[in-house]
Amino acid sequence: MKKNSKQEVKKVVLAYSGGIDTSTIVPWLIETYGCSVICFCAQIGQSNENLQGLEEKALQSGADKFILADLREEFASDFLFPMMKIEAVYEGKYPLGTAISRPIIAKHVVETAKKEGADAVAHGATGRGNDQVRFELAFMALAPELKIIAPWREWEFKSREEVIAYARQKSVPINLPRGIGVNHDSNLWHISHEGGVLEDITNEVDESVYRWTASPENAPDQPVEMAITFEQGIPVALDGNPLSGAKLIEALNAIGGTHGIGRSQLIESRLIGFKSHGIYETPAGTILLEAHRALESILHPRELRRFKRAAADTYADLIYNGMWFTELREALDAFTAVTQQRVNGEVRLKAFKGNLVVTGISSPDSGYNGDAALFEPSGGFDNTFGTGFIHFYGLSSKVQGMIDSPEIDLEDKNKHLKQFKRD
Amino acid sequence: MKKNSKQEVKKVVLAYSGGIDTSTIVPWLIETYGCSVICFCAQIGQSNENLQGLEEKALQSGADKFILADLREEFASDFLFPMMKIEAVYEGKYPLGTAISRPIIAKHVVETAKKEGADAVAHGATGRGNDQVRFELAFMALAPELKIIAPWREWEFKSREEVIAYARQKSVPINLPRGIGVNHDSNLWHISHEGGVLEDITNEVDESVYRWTASPENAPDQPVEMAITFEQGIPVALDGNPLSGAKLIEALNAIGGTHGIGRSQLIESRLIGFKSHGIYETPAGTILLEAHRALESILHPRELRRFKRAAADTYADLIYNGMWFTELREALDAFTAVTQQRVNGEVRLKAFKGNLVVTGISSPDSGYNGDAALFEPSGGFDNTFGTGFIHFYGLSSKVQGMIDSPEIDLEDKNKHLKQFKRD
Amino acid sequence: MKKNSKQEVKKVVLAYSGGIDTSTIVPWLIETYGCSVICFCAQIGQSNENLQGLEEKALQSGADKFILADLREEFASDFLFPMMKIEAVYEGKYPLGTAISRPIIAKHVVETAKKEGADAVAHGATGRGNDQVRFELAFMALAPELKIIAPWREWEFKSREEVIAYARQKSVPINLPRGIGVNHDSNLWHISHEGGVLEDITNEVDESVYRWTASPENAPDQPVEMAITFEQGIPVALDGNPLSGAKLIEALNAIGGTHGIGRSQLIESRLIGFKSHGIYETPAGTILLEAHRALESILHPRELRRFKRAAADTYADLIYNGMWFTELREALDAFTAVTQQRVNGEVRLKAFKGNLVVTGISSPDSGYNGDAALFEPSGGFDNTFGTGFIHFYGLSSKVQGMIDSPEIDLEDKNKHLKQFKRD
Amino acid sequence: MKKNSKQEVKKVVLAYSGGIDTSTIVPWLIETYGCSVICFCAQIGQSNENLQGLEEKALQSGADKFILADLREEFASDFLFPMMKIEAVYEGKYPLGTAISRPIIAKHVVETAKKEGADAVAHGATGRGNDQVRFELAFMALAPELKIIAPWREWEFKSREEVIAYARQKSVPINLPRGIGVNHDSNLWHISHEGGVLEDITNEVDESVYRWTASPENAPDQPVEMAITFEQGIPVALDGNPLSGAKLIEALNAIGGTHGIGRSQLIESRLIGFKSHGIYETPAGTILLEAHRALESILHPRELRRFKRAAADTYADLIYNGMWFTELREALDAFTAVTQQRVNGEVRLKAFKGNLVVTGISSPDSGYNGDAALFEPSGGFDNTFGTGFIHFYGLSSKVQGMIDSPEIDLEDKNKHLKQFKRD
Repeated sequence: MKKNSKQEVKKVVLAYSGGIDTSTIVPWLIETYGCSVICFCAQIGQSNENLQGLEEKALQSGADKFILADLREEFASDFLFPMMKIEAVYEGKYPLGTAISRPIIAKHVVETAKKEGADAVAHGATGRGNDQVRFELAFMALAPELKIIAPWREWEFKSREEVIAYARQKSVPINLPRGIGVNHDSNLWHISHEGGVLEDITNEVDESVYRWTASPENAPDQPVEMAITFEQGIPVALDGNPLSGAKLIEALNAIGGTHGIGRSQLIESRLIGFKSHGIYETPAGTILLEAHRALESILHPRELRRFKRAAADTYADLIYNGMWFTELREALDAFTAVTQQRVNGEVRLKAFKGNLVVTGISSPDSGYNGDAALFEPSGGFDNTFGTGFIHFYGLSSKVQGMIDSPEIDLEDKNKHLKQFKRD
Repeated sequence: MKKNSKQEVKKVVLAYSGGIDTSTIVPWLIETYGCSVICFCAQIGQSNENLQGLEEKALQSGADKFILADLREEFASDFLFPMMKIEAVYEGKYPLGTAISRPIIAKHVVETAKKEGADAVAHGATGRGNDQVRFELAFMALAPELKIIAPWREWEFKSREEVIAYARQKSVPINLPRGIGVNHDSNLWHISHEGGVLEDITNEVDESVYRWTASPENAPDQPVEMAITFEQGIPVALDGNPLSGAKLIEALNAIGGTHGIGRSQLIESRLIGFKSHGIYETPAGTILLEAHRALESILHPRELRRFKRAAADTYADLIYNGMWFTELREALDAFTAVTQQRVNGEVRLKAFKGNLVVTGISSPDSGYNGDAALFEPSGGFDNTFGTGFIHFYGLSSKVQGMIDSPEIDLEDKNKHLKQFKRD
Repeated sequence: MKKNSKQEVKKVVLAYSGGIDTSTIVPWLIETYGCSVICFCAQIGQSNENLQGLEEKALQSGADKFILADLREEFASDFLFPMMKIEAVYEGKYPLGTAISRPIIAKHVVETAKKEGADAVAHGATGRGNDQVRFELAFMALAPELKIIAPWREWEFKSREEVIAYARQKSVPINLPRGIGVNHDSNLWHISHEGGVLEDITNEVDESVYRWTASPENAPDQPVEMAITFEQGIPVALDGNPLSGAKLIEALNAIGGTHGIGRSQLIESRLIGFKSHGIYETPAGTILLEAHRALESILHPRELRRFKRAAADTYADLIYNGMWFTELREALDAFTAVTQQRVNGEVRLKAFKGNLVVTGISSPDSGYNGDAALFEPSGGFDNTFGTGFIHFYGLSSKVQGMIDSPEIDLEDKNKHLKQFKRD
Repeated sequence: MKKNSKQEVKKVVLAYSGGIDTSTIVPWLIETYGCSVICFCAQIGQSNENLQGLEEKALQSGADKFILADLREEFASDFLFPMMKIEAVYEGKYPLGTAISRPIIAKHVVETAKKEGADAVAHGATGRGNDQVRFELAFMALAPELKIIAPWREWEFKSREEVIAYARQKSVPINLPRGIGVNHDSNLWHISHEGGVLEDITNEVDESVYRWTASPENAPDQPVEMAITFEQGIPVALDGNPLSGAKLIEALNAIGGTHGIGRSQLIESRLIGFKSHGIYETPAGTILLEAHRALESILHPRELRRFKRAAADTYADLIYNGMWFTELREALDAFTAVTQQRVNGEVRLKAFKGNLVVTGISSPDSGYNGDAALFEPSGGFDNTFGTGFIHFYGLSSKVQGMIDSPEIDLEDKNKHLKQFKRD
C-alpha cells in the first residue's frame, strides 16, 4: 500500500495485549504489508479482565494465530528478583514495573518469531514514549536480522480518535476504557496510571484512579504482620510457607493492597527529554524491597552498601532505558549474585493503613544478631583506640586547619610542624 | 593527677548538654587538669526539658561560667537547609539529625574558646561512637592549636554506673533518665533513640519509645494539608505565611508529629566498623525533603537529577563522617547553589496517619506546569523522530546482536554489515 | 525549491570554516531556501592556512557577508581552562579539543544571528557524527526560536564526490585536501585526525599524519624544562613571564610540539553508537593537565581527589555529548571554583622525546612542601595510633572473618564475641 | 619482659623479607614474647639479591624455621590479573604494585600459621604507613583467632639507628642499603622507591634511583615491537608464544625496562592522612594495561566503559586500603569476569625511549575490525536519523532555553509551546 511496501514482510509476530492499539495494529499490518500476523500475548500477571476473550479478539481482528504464554514464574525469577536483589528503583521512586516487563515480552516475541519462521516483529508503543526504545533495543540485541515494525511511528493517524475510527471500520472488537486518556499497565509487579487528567499536577490524584491498593482511610483498622524468608537474597517463603516466586508476589500484592501499601507518585524524567507524571501501585515490590534492605543492613558492611547503591542506580537506568540485554546488565547481575550469598534470614513487617514497618530481622550469617545487639571481638577494646583512629582519619583536616589558621604565624607553624620520616 | 598532667591546661570550653555525661565531666576536668571549665550549651532546638536549670546545674558541678547561645536560626540556614537542598540522607534512611548538629556546636565551642582565651576544648562523646570523630575533626579544622580532651577515652570508669557513682561523690546534680540504656538526642531536625532494649532487632520497637510523632493508630482521623513555598530551594513560607527557617521547621514538626510523619528506623553502618540500630523521628525534615524532591522533579533534567543524587550520597557521608569543615563540602555547596536558582514555587502535601502525599506542585520556572501537562516546542514533532533516536541509541546493541547471533553466518554478516564512512 | 520551502527562511548565519563542506553549503542554502547567508568564522587558534583568503572565498561562494571574530582569549579563559581545572578527559585519553570548540562557536553564531536579525542558523557537521549534536543542543539552549539547518541531513548528495561536483558547478572555490578521507580539526587546544586510512586499526598510524608534534625519533637530543605558575588553578605565567591564556597555550604548543609531547590515540565511543579511531595532538593541553594534576596532588585531600575525578568524568561526558549550556555544567564549574582557591604555586616539567616528567612542585598553600617532606602536627604522634585506627577500620572484616571461620565453632564464637554496649 | 607478657604467645609466623626490619624483629619477638619464630618468605618476583642467603640469615637471627614459597604464578593469576582486568590504578597513576602484594603474603602467612600450629602472626610494617593496615585487615579476615604482632608499634626504638644498634647487639646479619632513607619494594609487578631524599619534591628525581628502567636518554635507538594475545582478558602469549602469567610478566619487564617503559611518579594520598611521594617502575604492568585498554576499546560499549572505570576506582581503593579479602572485592571480580568473556584478540605495541604506542588491535569478537573500519548494519541508515535523535536528546535543553529566553515573551511562549498528549 505505501512506503514500506518496498521491503517485503511475510509474517509478523506482534506483541499483543488486546487493547485498542494492538488490536487495531493487526488489520493495519495486514493491509500495509500484505503479511500474516501472529498475536503473541505474555501472561505476566496483568489484570485478569485483560486476558479474557483474547484469542477470539485476535482472530476476529484478522490474526492468523494467537499464542498465550504463561511467563509469570520466569518473570519473577529471571527479571523481577534480579532487579529486587540489587534494589533498583528509578529516580528514587519508580519501582520499574512497566520497564522490567518489556524485555521478557520482547524475548518471547523473538523466540516465537524464530519458531514460527516470521521475518518481522511489531509492537504497539507510541512514538514519544520509553517503551518503543525498550522493545526495539531488545529486538535488536536478540535478533538483529528481524525487521521491526512500529505502527505508531508509521501510520498516518493523527489521534487516538482516528485509530478508533479505523478499528471500527475494520470491525476490530474494542472496549473503550473508563476515563479516556488515562493509560494503565499492569503485571505481577505493579499497576501504573498515567496520562489524561493525571497530567495536571496542581491537583491531588483522585482516589478513583487507584485499583490495587486501599486508601489509608479505607484500609482495615487492624494491622497485619508478615514474615518473609530469604535465601541468597530471594524470597522463598511467607509466614514460613514455601511459595514460588510468582505465588509469593501475588500473595503479597493481596496483603499489601488491602492495607494500602505500595503507592508511589513522581514526575519522572523519560529517556527522551519529556517529563511525565507516573502513578504506581507496587504492593509486593514495596514490601519485598523494604524487607530485603532490612536484611542486607545487618549483613553488608558500609563500603559494600555504598557501592551497591550506586550500582543499583545504574541498573535502574539500564532497565528504564531499555538496556536489559547488555553485557553491563549481566555483569551487574554477577556482581549482585556474590553479594547475596549471605543474604539469608527472616524479616517480619507490619502493614497498617499505608504504613509499612519492619518489626524483626534475623539471619544466621550476621554479626548483628538475635537476643541482643552489636558485638565485637573480645579481648580487644581499648578506650584509646578512638584517639588513634581520629589522629589518622583527621590528619588532613588538621594540617589544613594549621595552614589556614590566622592564629598561627609562620614561625609558629614551623614550631608546630615537625618533619615526618618513614622510619 | 595523671598522664595528662605533663600537658598543662588552664581553661577548657566544654560542649555541655547538662546530661549525666557532660555534668560529670566538669569536676573530672577540674580534678584531672587543675583547669577552669566553661560550659557552653548550644540551643539548637533540643527538647525544652533539657534546657531548664542548666546554668545552676553547670555552676553547681563546678564550672566557672555557663554560656547558652540560641543558634536555631543559624542551624536552620547554614546547616540544615544546605543539607536539605542537596537532599542528603545517610544509607537511604537516616536524615542525619545528630550528625549535622555536631559541626555547629563545635564551631561555637571553638569561637567561645578563642573569645575566652581557653587553651582546650572538651566533649562528652564516648569512645566507640561517631560523635567523637565529628567533634574532633571540626575542632582540628577550626582551631588546630587547641588541645582536645575526650574524657570518655581518658578516664578510668568502666561503666556508666561508675560514672554515676563519681558524679554523686562530687555532688553533681543528675537526673536519671527513664529507661536506662536508651539514649536520646534532639534538636530542630529530629529526635533519635538508640541503645538499651532497642539493640534487640528481633522485636518491634515499642510505641513508648517515640516522643514527637503519633502512631498511625493514634493520629487524627482528619488529614491536614500544607503548602510550602520555596525560593532558591529554601522553604520561606507555610500556607502563604512567611516564616524564618527555624520557625518553619518548628511549625512543621508540630503538624507532622501530630499526624505521625517522619519515623525512620534502620540498622546503620557507623563510621567505625560497628552497626547500630537507630530510631529517628524527623517530622519537618521528612516533609521538607519530600516537598523539595517534588519541586526539583519538575525542574531538573534527568542528567542533573542523576548526578545530584550521587553528590548527595557523598554529602551525606561527609556529614556522617565528621567532614563538614572541608573543601569538598564547601565545593558541593557551591554546586548545589547553582542547581537551586530555579527551585522556586509551591508544593502542597497532605498528611494523614503516617502517610505523606504530594497533592500539588507549581513553579514559574518549570517546563512542566499548571493547567495541563507536558509541553514541547511547537512546529516540531515528527512521528519518525523515534526511529532516528532508536537507530543511534541502540546501535551498539544491534552490532553486538549481530556478532553474537548464531543465526547469521560470517558470509551473511558481511552482507548485513556495510562499511561506515564519515562522509 | 523543495521540502523546506514551506518554512520561510530569510537570513541564515552559517558556522563557516572555509572547508569544502561549509563552502558548498553557502550556494545550497541560497538555492534551497532563497535566503541570504552570513558566514561566521570563529578564530579559535586553528591552523593559519585555514584562515587565509576566507573572506574572498565566502563572498565568492555567494555569502552576503563574512565575519571573522578572534575568540582565542575567550576560548582559553571561558572554555579550555574550566575544562582543564576539573581535568576532564574523555574515556581517559581524549582531551576533548574538538568537542570543547563547538559551544563557543555556537554561542557566537547565535549572537551574530541576533545582531544581524537572522532567523536561522546552520552548520556543516555530518549526520553520523557528534558535532551535529553539539552545535544543535547549544543553538537550542541559547536561541530556541531560531530555525536550525543541518544541510548534511537535508541535501540529496550521496557522497563527498557529489558534494564536490555541486561545488564546482556553483563555482565555489575549494582546495582538495591532501590525503582525501582523513579529516582534521584544529584549534588552540589540539589538532585531530580521523577517517580514511586511519579507520584501519590493524596497522600503525603513519608518521606523516602528525602535524604539530615531532616523533620521539625526530625530537631534539636535548630536553627542555618549563616552569608553569598557577593562580587559583589557572596557568598565568611560563618560566616566570606572565602570559595571557591564549599566548601561554600557544607557547606550550610550540615547546611541546618540538619535543613530541601530546600525542594520543584511541578508539572512542561516540555519543551515537559508533566507535571511531581518533588521533589527537594536544601539546599544551597535555602539559597543563600534567602540571595541574601535580599541583593538586600536594593540595587536595584524598576524598576531594576521589570525588573530583568522578565529577571530571561527568564533565567530560557533558562536553562530549554537547551539553555545555546546561545547569549541570554550570553547577560543576561552581564546584570546581571552590576547589581551585588554594591551587596556587609553580610546577616544573621536563620534556624530552615524547616523555614529560614533573621535576618540581611548590605551593604556598600546601601541607607537603619545599625543603623537605611530609610533616605532621608536632607533639602528637604515638606509635599506638595505628592500633586504634586498624581496630575500627578493620572491625567489619574481623567480625566477618569470625562468622565465616570454620576454625571457630559456635561455642567458641560466643566466647570470642562479647556484647557491645554504647556506654 | 613487658606489657605484652600478659598475653601468652608460643609460636609466631613472621612475614619475613630479610631486610633490616624483619631481621631485627626475630630476636625482638623471642626476647619480648619468649616464643619461637617461623620466618615465612614469599617469593613473588622480588629482586634476586633480596632472596640470597635468606635461610642462613633467618636462622642466624634466631628463627626456628625458615620457609620460602614460590608464589609467582599464583600472584600473577589470582592477584595481578584480576587487578589488571578491571584496570585498577590508584589516583590515576600508581599501579598498586606494593598494595597488591600484601594480601597474597598475608594469605600464606596465615596458612603457614595454621599448618605449623602458630598462635600469632607478625609483620614488619611501620606505624604510619599503609602496609600495616593491609597486612592486618587480611589477617583479621582470614584468621581472626590469631594474635597480630606489629613490632614497629610496640617496641621502644625511636629511630632506625636504634633498630640497627639493637640488631648489631643481637648479632643479626644486616646489609646497610645504599642511600639510607630511600625504601624499595619489588615484586613481579613493580619496584617502588620512597622516603629519604625523594621526599623533597622541589627537585627532579635523580636518575640513579631507577633500577629496572632505562632513561629515555639511555634507551636503545631502535624501537621494539610486541604482540600480546589475550583470552578472556588474560594475556596468554607474547609474539605468538604461549607463556604462563609470571613468565609473560617477566618477559615484558625485561623488554619494557630496556626501552624505558613504566616509570610513574606521584604525590599519593595515603589511607591515613599523610601524603607521600612515590616513584614506581612498572614495565610489564604499564604495557599490559595499555594493551588491555586498547582491546576493550573496540569491544565494550560506551555505558560499560563508563561504569567499569568507576568500578576500577573503587577496586583500586579496596586494594590500596587493605580490603582485598572482602565481599565487595569478590563481587567486583564477578562483575569483571562477565565483561572479559569477549576480551579476546591481539594487540601490538611499539616501545621506544619511554614511549609506548599501540600499533595494531584485532579481535574476533569486535564490531570494529580488521581490513577497514567501523561498520553499521546495512539497509538502515537514513540521513534524517540525526534529526530524530537530536530532537529527543536535546528536548530538555530546548524547553529550558525557551523558559529562560528574554526574546520570547509569555504570549510568544504559549504560541511556541503546544500541549503534549501521549496519544
